Amino acid sequence: MPRQIPGNLPTSEPIEIREDFRWSALQPLSASAIPAGAEISPAWRENLKPDGLYDGIEAVGDEWMRLACDLARESVESKGGPFGAVILQIDEASGRILRYWTGRNRVVLERDPTAHAEVTAIRAACASLGVFDLGSISTEASLLGQPGERSHCVIYSSTEPCPMCYAAIRWAKLRALCFAATRHDAAVPGVEFSDLALYDELATPYARRGFKVLQCATGNSLEAFELWKRSEKTVY
Amino acid sequence: MPRQIPGNLPTSEPIEIREDFRWSALQPLSASAIPAGAEISPAWRENLKPDGLYDGIEAVGDEWMRLACDLARESVESKGGPFGAVILQIDEASGRILRYWTGRNRVVLERDPTAHAEVTAIRAACASLGVFDLGSISTEASLLGQPGERSHCVIYSSTEPCPMCYAAIRWAKLRALCFAATRHDAAVPGVEFSDLALYDELATPYARRGFKVLQCATGNSLEAFELWKRSEKTVY
Repeated sequence: MPRQIPGNLPTSEPIEIREDFRWSALQPLSASAIPAGAEISPAWRENLKPDGLYDGIEAVGDEWMRLACDLARESVESKGGPFGAVILQIDEASGRILRYWTGRNRVVLERDPTAHAEVTAIRAACASLGVFDLGSISTEASLLGQPGERSHCVIYSSTEPCPMCYAAIRWAKLRALCFAATRHDAAVPGVEFSDLALYDELATPYARRGFKVLQCATGNSLEAFELWKRSEKTVY
Repeated sequence: MPRQIPGNLPTSEPIEIREDFRWSALQPLSASAIPAGAEISPAWRENLKPDGLYDGIEAVGDEWMRLACDLARESVESKGGPFGAVILQIDEASGRILRYWTGRNRVVLERDPTAHAEVTAIRAACASLGVFDLGSISTEASLLGQPGERSHCVIYSSTEPCPMCYAAIRWAKLRALCFAATRHDAAVPGVEFSDLALYDELATPYARRGFKVLQCATGNSLEAFELWKRSEKTVY
């Protein structure tokens, strides 16, 4: 039976989840095994994925992806970019969802070019929990309570993350990434975000990247690394 | 004659710049044309750049790169990661430097995995100026004064930016990027940052990226893009 998310989850917008919902239940399917009635995007139906990049990772969307995509639509309605993200905190032992955080694109609203939906959600989760590593959260390290010794987080994004957000997801050590629309969907006429071009640029020699890039080393260029090697440090 | 940076520059650490300093003077050199006495890194001398990625972008470092590398060393001394960055605001007509902002790696200190030096500097500059586009700053849009109609910003980073920071630099529309150490310098034993591996990962199909990635679309996946197409919007 569907039920409301319990009141202790930090959200002002109740949505329905299944009583037995465990995050690990989400698994890739073959395209020929789409369950009858499953909600999938036109992009998937039309197989608008021109390279092998996405092979074997398709899953049927769930209520969390619907929430991420609803946030993306609401973001446009409030003059933000068309992107939304949700981070789930999951109890390691049971797979039960403990909390979630949401993010919307706030680049224009906050005049911060780094305020993409995923980065905004990561910052919110890290600030709440008081950790920089969302991949393994111990009871001792966390500012918020959790039932078991360890928990971890996963992220849903309405669109395939740009390289900034993808790398932020990896630095935050999120255990899984689910996205709906692809970089190709975001590049179509009338939408025209340059994620696709930016991914291509990353594989191009610096001399041909369309803006000035210089490697200008100095005598002290490697001092910080030398000091880092011999310092007591927190590896992150 | 060297002189102190004028007092109206927002810095607590005066450094020397040349009276005639214009940013556009910084240009790539051929490796055979290194001026006598120029400060360059061991990495450059030993040509530790195994692919064609860096060809033709070498320049002789200047005081701003020395500052970025000093910030990186100071960051380690204050328990941060070994990375520093400087953003310069430049008057479009004259090439004169108007202001600068600094950033250090604050991931551990702020428990924010996105608080790399470059991202921190970009956020600081955008917050001061009240703009999300550092590539073309008009007098009307800027919260801070400027002598001419237009200015723009460039960034110095002590190390080649990771994909997160590189993409942040492109989204912020910075006009130029100067870095000293490379992703290879950051990967050596004892330093061991995974920028190199992360760049390689970005070119790998999602099914083989070492963490779970799913494309899980839903019926509402493209609603935000459809609304975006027909909305009045600020393109960013």
